[in-house]
Amino acid sequence: MPELRQNIATMEWVIIAADRAKRPEQFVQAGKERTEAQLAHAANCPFCPGNEELDLERLRLPDEGDWLLRVVQNRYPALRESGERMQHFDGVNTSISGVGYHEVVVESRLHNTSPATEDPADIERTLRAFQLRGAVFRADERIEQIVYFKNHGPTAGASLVHPHAQLLGLPVVPYTVRARMEEARRYFDDQGECVICRMRQDEERDGARMVAATTFFSVFVPYAALSPFHLWIVPRRHRASFLDATAEELGDLALTLRDVLGRIYVGLNDPDYNYVIRSTPDSEHESEYLHWYIAIVPRVTRAAGFEMGTGMFINPALPEESARFLCSITAP
Amino acid sequence: MPELRQNIATMEWVIIAADRAKRPEQFVQAGKERTEAQLAHAANCPFCPGNEELDLERLRLPDEGDWLLRVVQNRYPALRESGERMQHFDGVNTSISGVGYHEVVVESRLHNTSPATEDPADIERTLRAFQLRGAVFRADERIEQIVYFKNHGPTAGASLVHPHAQLLGLPVVPYTVRARMEEARRYFDDQGECVICRMRQDEERDGARMVAATTFFSVFVPYAALSPFHLWIVPRRHRASFLDATAEELGDLALTLRDVLGRIYVGLNDPDYNYVIRSTPDSEHESEYLHWYIAIVPRVTRAAGFEMGTGMFINPALPEESARFLCSITAP
Repeated sequence: MPELRQNIATMEWVIIAADRAKRPEQFVQAGKERTEAQLAHAANCPFCPGNEELDLERLRLPDEGDWLLRVVQNRYPALRESGERMQHFDGVNTSISGVGYHEVVVESRLHNTSPATEDPADIERTLRAFQLRGAVFRADERIEQIVYFKNHGPTAGASLVHPHAQLLGLPVVPYTVRARMEEARRYFDDQGECVICRMRQDEERDGARMVAATTFFSVFVPYAALSPFHLWIVPRRHRASFLDATAEELGDLALTLRDVLGRIYVGLNDPDYNYVIRSTPDSEHESEYLHWYIAIVPRVTRAAGFEMGTGMFINPALPEESARFLCSITAP
Repeated sequence: MPELRQNIATMEWVIIAADRAKRPEQFVQAGKERTEAQLAHAANCPFCPGNEELDLERLRLPDEGDWLLRVVQNRYPALRESGERMQHFDGVNTSISGVGYHEVVVESRLHNTSPATEDPADIERTLRAFQLRGAVFRADERIEQIVYFKNHGPTAGASLVHPHAQLLGLPVVPYTVRARMEEARRYFDDQGECVICRMRQDEERDGARMVAATTFFSVFVPYAALSPFHLWIVPRRHRASFLDATAEELGDLALTLRDVLGRIYVGLNDPDYNYVIRSTPDSEHESEYLHWYIAIVPRVTRAAGFEMGTGMFINPALPEESARFLCSITAP
């Protein structure tokens, strides 16, 4: 019998399609050439050493000698850094001027690496860059929401191979974020606890979907995972904003990301994936009921008309089997 | 300057990325083999005449002689027809048994056709089949929501070429649908009118994004279109449920769909697309503030980490230019 499961934090329903369920091995990306098989340096790559566009640079680490990481403004930014946040309301014509930040983190000098195989220190540097630039966005009163993410591979929306992540500072709180905040507030009002803390504790107690647990983080395939190998990395310490994660937590998070992205890389043969850091609008960063976390989504299925029409998903893999498979794999 | 636009019905924000905007011609699917270049009959296609699996059949039109349309249960249904709707609530373990309907409308005997090029009578037959099966789902008290859609082409999630559409009867109201209902109710409470009626009237008055207008329908690229050539087909008559559309409206809708899908086919060279009929949970079918409509989304861009993290979209085409382009094209 198929089952509809609901994520108690996002309130999203997913159909766990037992009758059409596939085994974890069926999602292995057969015949795919892994990232590390590419050239280590590409002459025409805008992110490779030698091709730096210095006028776009916003941060460089370390700031002396050869850089190991650069943050640059997106060459085709979706938002503009300068200008006022002007609102316009006239019936259907409801708009805000497109001010904000759209930056790219060039995560390595090497063209053909990715978090799955690189040194945890490289991942930690990306996380630090997110925090350093995020703090600048937060200080800008035009910014309402910051989003941090990585697209790996073409089907995940990455147009360049060179390892990079992105962050945007938005002049609005997106509707989805606002709706989740309202649900979290409602849960807190009803139950007197943070719903993400509750999910983490329930998942740890149950254990069937746990993939890793470190000093500061729990990693699990959520009970209502939207797709195969969908993962959440949840900080044990209740904090609303990623910007309030400590240096100690970032170090642990780098090791955790390296471990789980490495398992995905080995187990599924370097699938395309997205990760996103779901953090809180800055004005709410001391909230008792909001809790930041990371979602990782390997791109092994495709959304279609059903997902468009409902916002629901059909997951052709049992979350418990996805977790068991990832537990059986060792990161490189 | 880029601009953030908000859809006043869905409350979704989109970034209209003027700085990275492309011309409509840049979305033409160069070198793509059109559907009609395929075989007219494929021996191994489960939907072609001669391969009918009769035990899965739920409707056949006409019911005597050679069929022109069949509705069959999905061979790998996401939901099961029989069984009780059982709910389970225990912290993170929140679920409902997967009962409901998951059916496929085989829209033609021909393997290599699609609504863009077929006879409007064929499209009307699909719409009638949606209503006939939808009425069966509606009579089943386990069903809370019906969704009707079509996936055309592999990047839109269609695994088979043979023209087909789908409908599901769900035992829950999806979260996104519920959230939109609440926004529509709020708008009605504040403004005393249906927000979709208001959008249609505003778009007709403005005119810059109108693509077609018939006796019963208005077609436009919404002011806050999420992607290039994103289209809404909105009935002029206020009705909450697609199941309450009259035979006269269905005839007009078939001509309208033929026209706009034909323009997309010619203008963009048969791109993959989804369409979805957004209708109302049956219990609300006499609502004053809910209004059914059709959304069409050609798959010419790709969602990535940003969309996942925010629920927002970046549209690299100006909605006004998308509309102007479609207006300049004649359907085949």
